[in-house]
Amino acid sequence: MKTTRTRSLLAAAFLGALAFTANVAHAADHLPSWNDTAPKKAIVAFVEKVTKEGSPDFVPPNERIATFDNDGTLWAEQPMYFQLPFALDRVKALAAQHPEWKDKQPFASLLKGDVKGALAGGEPAIFQIVMATHAGMTTEEFEKIVRDWLATAKHPKTGRPYTDMIYQPMVELLRYLRAAGFKTYIVSGGGIEFMRPWSEKVYGIPPEQVIGSSGKLKFELRDGKPVLVKLPEVDFIDDKEGKPVAINKFIGRRPTLAFGNSDGDLQMLQWTAAGNGVRFMGLVHHTDADRERAYDRDSSIGRLNKALDEAKAKNWTVVDMKKDWKRVFGFE
Amino acid sequence: MKTTRTRSLLAAAFLGALAFTANVAHAADHLPSWNDTAPKKAIVAFVEKVTKEGSPDFVPPNERIATFDNDGTLWAEQPMYFQLPFALDRVKALAAQHPEWKDKQPFASLLKGDVKGALAGGEPAIFQIVMATHAGMTTEEFEKIVRDWLATAKHPKTGRPYTDMIYQPMVELLRYLRAAGFKTYIVSGGGIEFMRPWSEKVYGIPPEQVIGSSGKLKFELRDGKPVLVKLPEVDFIDDKEGKPVAINKFIGRRPTLAFGNSDGDLQMLQWTAAGNGVRFMGLVHHTDADRERAYDRDSSIGRLNKALDEAKAKNWTVVDMKKDWKRVFGFE
Repeated sequence: MKTTRTRSLLAAAFLGALAFTANVAHAADHLPSWNDTAPKKAIVAFVEKVTKEGSPDFVPPNERIATFDNDGTLWAEQPMYFQLPFALDRVKALAAQHPEWKDKQPFASLLKGDVKGALAGGEPAIFQIVMATHAGMTTEEFEKIVRDWLATAKHPKTGRPYTDMIYQPMVELLRYLRAAGFKTYIVSGGGIEFMRPWSEKVYGIPPEQVIGSSGKLKFELRDGKPVLVKLPEVDFIDDKEGKPVAINKFIGRRPTLAFGNSDGDLQMLQWTAAGNGVRFMGLVHHTDADRERAYDRDSSIGRLNKALDEAKAKNWTVVDMKKDWKRVFGFE
Repeated sequence: MKTTRTRSLLAAAFLGALAFTANVAHAADHLPSWNDTAPKKAIVAFVEKVTKEGSPDFVPPNERIATFDNDGTLWAEQPMYFQLPFALDRVKALAAQHPEWKDKQPFASLLKGDVKGALAGGEPAIFQIVMATHAGMTTEEFEKIVRDWLATAKHPKTGRPYTDMIYQPMVELLRYLRAAGFKTYIVSGGGIEFMRPWSEKVYGIPPEQVIGSSGKLKFELRDGKPVLVKLPEVDFIDDKEGKPVAINKFIGRRPTLAFGNSDGDLQMLQWTAAGNGVRFMGLVHHTDADRERAYDRDSSIGRLNKALDEAKAKNWTVVDMKKDWKRVFGFE
């Protein structure tokens, strides 16, 4: 540590780190999976503005908050939100402990392999399935169930693990923002405890920066050991009007940047846009039937209708997956 | 930037930074307001253990979570939780808009200056006062009200602003833990929106690391501008069994260290203690009638009874304010 050579190497490393910090906004290859079209340019221009000290648009590092929807924004959501096949698999796994399910809908249809029939009951049916599979265990037990499922479950179309179904350009965007001093958050309608076991490894987003829908919990001492038991009661639905409410509750600051893909994200984008100074509102538009899937106004999953109109009216950034992304998935 | 001299200076700065990181655990003067008694030794020994790479007790930086109660742990709570004089002052300020309060308890007594009479109604009276003063405005309006109040309100005994009533040894502990890579959190029964406007400046704890009790919020568009309106309904009480529930919800990781001062913190300490590996559980025991106040088992505010017994039985660290703190407040 004391030779001149070592010092020089350290100095070089230190200067390198400085240079990286200073130039991060200029290094266009932080987003290699993005085409050089308008959205990439808008993102880079935004990051340059808010990180440039002395600029009127400068945002202090502690206020650099970026919130991302998950389903359809960071990972795929078709043919159905990935938490649903998880719940369906859990119904099968738990069926032996619930002989009554044989004669009870929506479980009876599910157990006969008739997913469509089971889901014909709409939201109440889905609610029953979720409650039956996401409650009655401790939070630690549930975390293990999620990890075990993800280790073996495969996406029906690609045959890949669900955690491979993440959008490479968005992972690059998350990294780019963090390098520019942003704290990156997930604000998703999905279950908070379904996302946290893998968000840090897959997105670099730690559990304390994952916000989602949740069920009620009960603190109990079991043989003197405290546990948190998951109850079959909704605590909070983190969707639509719920997203700004959750952002205020969990973060207590308004995002500087927010990204979504559906009408469920509209209020989060409105809330972000209403802040002082420069803000960035983005939507992922699923336009790529070849590499992923094309859907928007008429889709029951990830419907993008009102938010698309508002984005156009207010000049928010709409990412056209087909035109703007060089690559969709990391495995391509 | 290119002369040898500049490089050497940078190298020295870099080496200095490295040395600081490596030695932070050994620098005993990170806690100058603590006497050299058992609690300080236990804290330093704990931090050394969990930050020493290769040690069996090593905790990776991303898992270094430290949670602190606020009232009675980070700042004083006598003669009453500071949020209560805030609410009482708000009743006076709002009285002109509520002529009906003249004949309605607990407001009528309050407006006559009879605080004791008003609070004789117990929790339901306090609940009414809090709801009448913490709801009906937007979150932004409420934040301004809190800031304005703190700028002028004075503690009845010391005549100091309430934000001066913070415990200097605990502020040093927060800093010391952050220097050792911990994320420091507040987990308080107090109102989340009452603490966030000042926690960053006063404790170095940003709003997104402040967890507290909360009321329900409603997202609304007012003349096209989105606002969050505070409703007169309880959302969550972050006390007792609620603390582990909130820690799980907001952080999603179990604390490595937790500090409280009353029975309201017992479940947080139990939850922390039940984790794998080495953990630190601490209690501030108010034993100093001269410099602050002496109270524990019989106090209606900050009662410390069951948690004191459990701390003794389980060898948790109990800080005897009188013996273990050189200084209580920064202004001494």
